[in-house]
Amino acid sequence: MVDTNNKYEPLTVETLAARLGSIKSITNLIGGDTSKWTVKEVGDGNLNLVFIVTGDAGSIIVKQALPYVRLVGDSWPLPLKRAFFEYHALTRQAERDPDSVPEIYHFDEAQAIIVMEFFTPHIILRHSLMAGTKHEGMAKVLGQFCARTLFRGSDLSMDAAKRKADVALFVDSVALCDITETLVFSDPYFDAERNHHTPQLDGLVAELRADIDLKVEAQHLKSKFCNNAETMLHGDFHTGSVMVTETETKVIDPEFALYGPIGFDIGMLLGNFWMAYFAQPGHASAVGEREEYQNWILGVVDEVWVEFSSEFSKLWREERTGILYEKALFEDQGHNLASEQALAHRLQHIWEDTLGFAGVEMIRRTLSLAHIAENDTIENEELRADCEARGLKLGRQLVVNRSRMNSMATVNDLARIIAKEAK
Amino acid sequence: MVDTNNKYEPLTVETLAARLGSIKSITNLIGGDTSKWTVKEVGDGNLNLVFIVTGDAGSIIVKQALPYVRLVGDSWPLPLKRAFFEYHALTRQAERDPDSVPEIYHFDEAQAIIVMEFFTPHIILRHSLMAGTKHEGMAKVLGQFCARTLFRGSDLSMDAAKRKADVALFVDSVALCDITETLVFSDPYFDAERNHHTPQLDGLVAELRADIDLKVEAQHLKSKFCNNAETMLHGDFHTGSVMVTETETKVIDPEFALYGPIGFDIGMLLGNFWMAYFAQPGHASAVGEREEYQNWILGVVDEVWVEFSSEFSKLWREERTGILYEKALFEDQGHNLASEQALAHRLQHIWEDTLGFAGVEMIRRTLSLAHIAENDTIENEELRADCEARGLKLGRQLVVNRSRMNSMATVNDLARIIAKEAK
Repeated sequence: MVDTNNKYEPLTVETLAARLGSIKSITNLIGGDTSKWTVKEVGDGNLNLVFIVTGDAGSIIVKQALPYVRLVGDSWPLPLKRAFFEYHALTRQAERDPDSVPEIYHFDEAQAIIVMEFFTPHIILRHSLMAGTKHEGMAKVLGQFCARTLFRGSDLSMDAAKRKADVALFVDSVALCDITETLVFSDPYFDAERNHHTPQLDGLVAELRADIDLKVEAQHLKSKFCNNAETMLHGDFHTGSVMVTETETKVIDPEFALYGPIGFDIGMLLGNFWMAYFAQPGHASAVGEREEYQNWILGVVDEVWVEFSSEFSKLWREERTGILYEKALFEDQGHNLASEQALAHRLQHIWEDTLGFAGVEMIRRTLSLAHIAENDTIENEELRADCEARGLKLGRQLVVNRSRMNSMATVNDLARIIAKEAK
Repeated sequence: MVDTNNKYEPLTVETLAARLGSIKSITNLIGGDTSKWTVKEVGDGNLNLVFIVTGDAGSIIVKQALPYVRLVGDSWPLPLKRAFFEYHALTRQAERDPDSVPEIYHFDEAQAIIVMEFFTPHIILRHSLMAGTKHEGMAKVLGQFCARTLFRGSDLSMDAAKRKADVALFVDSVALCDITETLVFSDPYFDAERNHHTPQLDGLVAELRADIDLKVEAQHLKSKFCNNAETMLHGDFHTGSVMVTETETKVIDPEFALYGPIGFDIGMLLGNFWMAYFAQPGHASAVGEREEYQNWILGVVDEVWVEFSSEFSKLWREERTGILYEKALFEDQGHNLASEQALAHRLQHIWEDTLGFAGVEMIRRTLSLAHIAENDTIENEELRADCEARGLKLGRQLVVNRSRMNSMATVNDLARIIAKEAK
């Protein structure tokens, strides 16, 4: 499946059919007559080329890494090896939570190309959250995806030697980790070169950057991100990495995969939901029009956590085959309560990490390089700043007080109060 | 320096001179006339061959890994690669704390041979603790060794890419990690095959194995050991890995090196001091004879921690060049207090881990496979059981209550109370 004898060259709409038209695993799916192929470049992310290729028998996605950050240009080089990490992450996610991620049809390491399943009529969840569309069953899929991939990629489940080999494999993803380490955990907290923010936030931004408790806690979270290799993370699990229809939910784009703390993926996801919640007034055609939808978003947040903890608990009880919290020490000794006690402690630990990582995500998406479309598309700057300020305020509360927040109801109430009160 | 073309074969007293006699870095040191070499096998550890080789110009140590655990025999195979990990750990420790570890003269990866500095008249600290000998300046060297190697091997100091490469290098040490994961963190807590203990402890052992809080906390500590890749640890830092004269202190044998939590090395060391403290009545020729020496040991414990925290704080303030708690966010913004706040949090975190790891070490050295000479050499079983029971009781307190113990004075007072009260 891996061909490393060919020199890297970016695909174009014009060259794609000639270059991929003789690969059996592709022609079997979409048809071998390349004269009937249509090729469309649709990459709207920050990093890669993405093509939809349609033949007379079907469509596929062709994703190719560029040797630099697409959003910035070739002044910011980025290793092609990220396709390798994405490939390895996708195969592991598919094993750990079947049908949650695109099937891979072909991988070419030297060309940094992954050919994979085209989800249609799915759209990116972030766009859907701007449009105000609800998705049945989505929270359950997302919560379960987190529980299954995070539990099954950890020492709670895996063979220890295999997990150690995977740690070695993914720890080589230095450049992509550096992006998260810098843009998420450091840049927002001082006047870094790549930062930008809505000018009306100047006062609040100065306040946050002088906030010693916030800065220290954000660095504690960075330390966990860098050093706590608990499980294989998606690593970039925001609402732009989720594709939805009204009834189906899929997860894409794990090229930032790394070994890190269990709470990171869930935290990033919930942080993006809370930002989408605060951004709704910027997308309402009349005051209050999006209130019910806002409640739906908070319900999703609640349900993601409930589904995550319930599935994680189920896996803890049924699939704990790794070297941590061995059944030999607990259940096999008649000490089921010890196992439950340990589970409760771990969930509390994940809960605190989740809130903390949600908080830093909300802050970095407003102050650092990459912002979110929900806010960027609000043209009225005053209104945009209001929405963003609310996210910053909740984010700050989560980072600093994460170990003293009792339940999701507490956090969602706080979000509601901030949404009403703040200006 | 690395010769991988030769097939592995264990050295013997008879073959050593013929096999190593033409290596320049050796003959330069001890003399090239191998007919004058004397070779003595002195390995008293659990794993390897160790030779003292003396020529007319000097002496060296030749350490060679065996493909199995020496203590157990070839029924327990163990990879030769541990010499590779020891070599890489020694070179890093020498950089991070110069003059603390033996100088390496020659390394042969395929033969799993390290030729290194012979410390004389140094003896193993554990033997010295049985003899009741004091060592000036030892606590300071040990505390500083921990601070320097642990700080400088972490993301607080290292270039992030280099640290990630080192994580990948050491995470391959699967078999040696498995020994610690199993013997230290799991076996003691149930009736595992390789366990053994002094029969008079039966009642207390049953109590500890039914102690749910203890078992859960020990597993939380195992989880930290397995997943928190904070720094390069020595990995086996007990009083058998320290060599002393009355005024000099050296650290040896880091073949268990791995990336793990900062508190692990210090905790293992302190646990061994506390066990040596409790074992003193077993080595006294009259009741009370060792009381003053016991106080000296508790003083050493206190001083190791003081020296560790003081040196760690110094390095934090002067050498924080890594990606964690960057000066760009703190000092460079005029927020020195933020840096001090973060340091205090991290020291508190290391303190709790240290106590916890000390506790599991005390328990495993009494209930699992490898016990300590201080206890094993007490021939009177009743007396030995008394000494061991006191260690188990302090160990249990440390593991379960580590986050509620305020100072080393508190812990040492507890040790004194247990020493007097327990039977």
